[in-house]
Amino acid sequence: MKETFVQYIRNLQNTITSTLEELDGSAKFKEDLWERPEGGGGRTRVIENGTVFEKGGVNISEVHGTLPESMQAYLGVTEASFFACGLSLVIHPKSPMVPTVHANWRYFELYDAEGKKVDSWFGGGQDLTPYYLFEEDATHFHQICKNACDAHDPSLYKEYKEKCDAYFYNSHRGEGRGIGGLFFDYLKATETTSMQDWYDFVTGVGNSFLEAYVPIVQKRKTLSYAKEQRDWQEIRRGRYVEFNLVHDKGTLFGLKTNGRIESILMSLPPHVQWHYDSHPEPGSEEEKLIEVLKSPKNWVNV
Amino acid sequence: MKETFVQYIRNLQNTITSTLEELDGSAKFKEDLWERPEGGGGRTRVIENGTVFEKGGVNISEVHGTLPESMQAYLGVTEASFFACGLSLVIHPKSPMVPTVHANWRYFELYDAEGKKVDSWFGGGQDLTPYYLFEEDATHFHQICKNACDAHDPSLYKEYKEKCDAYFYNSHRGEGRGIGGLFFDYLKATETTSMQDWYDFVTGVGNSFLEAYVPIVQKRKTLSYAKEQRDWQEIRRGRYVEFNLVHDKGTLFGLKTNGRIESILMSLPPHVQWHYDSHPEPGSEEEKLIEVLKSPKNWVNV
Repeated sequence: MKETFVQYIRNLQNTITSTLEELDGSAKFKEDLWERPEGGGGRTRVIENGTVFEKGGVNISEVHGTLPESMQAYLGVTEASFFACGLSLVIHPKSPMVPTVHANWRYFELYDAEGKKVDSWFGGGQDLTPYYLFEEDATHFHQICKNACDAHDPSLYKEYKEKCDAYFYNSHRGEGRGIGGLFFDYLKATETTSMQDWYDFVTGVGNSFLEAYVPIVQKRKTLSYAKEQRDWQEIRRGRYVEFNLVHDKGTLFGLKTNGRIESILMSLPPHVQWHYDSHPEPGSEEEKLIEVLKSPKNWVNV
Repeated sequence: MKETFVQYIRNLQNTITSTLEELDGSAKFKEDLWERPEGGGGRTRVIENGTVFEKGGVNISEVHGTLPESMQAYLGVTEASFFACGLSLVIHPKSPMVPTVHANWRYFELYDAEGKKVDSWFGGGQDLTPYYLFEEDATHFHQICKNACDAHDPSLYKEYKEKCDAYFYNSHRGEGRGIGGLFFDYLKATETTSMQDWYDFVTGVGNSFLEAYVPIVQKRKTLSYAKEQRDWQEIRRGRYVEFNLVHDKGTLFGLKTNGRIESILMSLPPHVQWHYDSHPEPGSEEEKLIEVLKSPKNWVNV
């Protein structure tokens, strides 16, 4: 399973970066190979200053070794070693009309002191963060998410959509980070679902990513916008930073366990603003977005 | 002591905001009075888009009530109530040649279930975050800090200077947030030092703040700078955000206990940048700053 999933995310990284380069039309991803002193490494690919994409990263990593103490406590195990691999991406478009997107698909194995595999699971998801709300885009993104889920089990979409709304939540602002998508974790073998089933599900979601995101970019990338709308995007990007640095478990885990900082923090937007006590005008498009972030909607029938 | 210190920080807020307004020459502080539903409130004063100061807040608060559970655990008490008051300020100048400054002076009382005061302490400090290193400015700031300490006990400066370097440290970057100053906490009555002594010390530091910062602003505010230098400032401001959102106990405590978000996050800079894996040129002024942030210096003889 390790080798199969590693091969899958390598291929998916290639597919996603080449498609996004084509969509951008001018910028290319820059690749950095890195090694983790404690075991493993990664292939970071970053695009900057493109026509469509202002900053984005599509990164894969495979790391292994002794499980850090903080994570031993978190998982309730002692003296374990682990293997983890995944693809993680965040794309910040230049235009405020094009939403930011995040996705992650990962696989984890846990071993006891004798090196015997004692547990394994998949995790991941994909979610959209618009700056202006085009309801049809939100519906499209969620419909593709739902289709990917339904192919395996019609009960999954509702569960992982709700988990996504709950996870990507800036509790200190009382707002979702975006309009959600899917979030799942600890997908383990059960009596009725094998790891191969979960592999099929997770790779099915991974395969749906471009179909979920690319048509939205194509539809919105040529819309014109005013400086005030760009300012609004940069202010909202501040909320993205707040979520990633205050609440996101993956980011904090990476920062506190000597992860590769530049690969972790590639998720932060390139230009960001914070103003004191700024609020959108009543009745404005900006306020319409906030309303939806405060009360997550069902974008497709479940 | 409560009333005395509250009166002190009210007056100090007035002195600091009027002095900074005069120094700026165009912008005025906007005042917001707010109440905390669980008890107490504050007086937030924010300056934005000035000639010298791009964004800054000088806030006082007095809050009281039942100690939140998370803080009960932190302080190792149960069923307690508390009183806390303090002045907290962060000033982000427009010019990259003028350093950002942060200061805080606070007083805390803890009561048992019967309402009897069981503990009390002072805390606080002041620290400087330059974007370009003018060694004479760093020396000046630290000399004023040292003078304020020496007036009470010649051993204090060394201890609180080191605590400041240790506290304002971005461990995930291996860099100090700035060039330090003073940081102290849990200043409690001992056999040789009364709470009145600590009051004299803490207010002595508070009184030294303008003398420590204002001459630096005056000296640097008219220096010219290039767009690249402004970009560097915005990138370094990103590190300021990282510290405040990932490591700063005060910020995280506020965000997780329903503090007044806008007063807490007024500390975040107005315009910020993050680029992938950006590093200053070898031998540049930008690199000179990083060197000092990686290895804190003694700016005055101790």
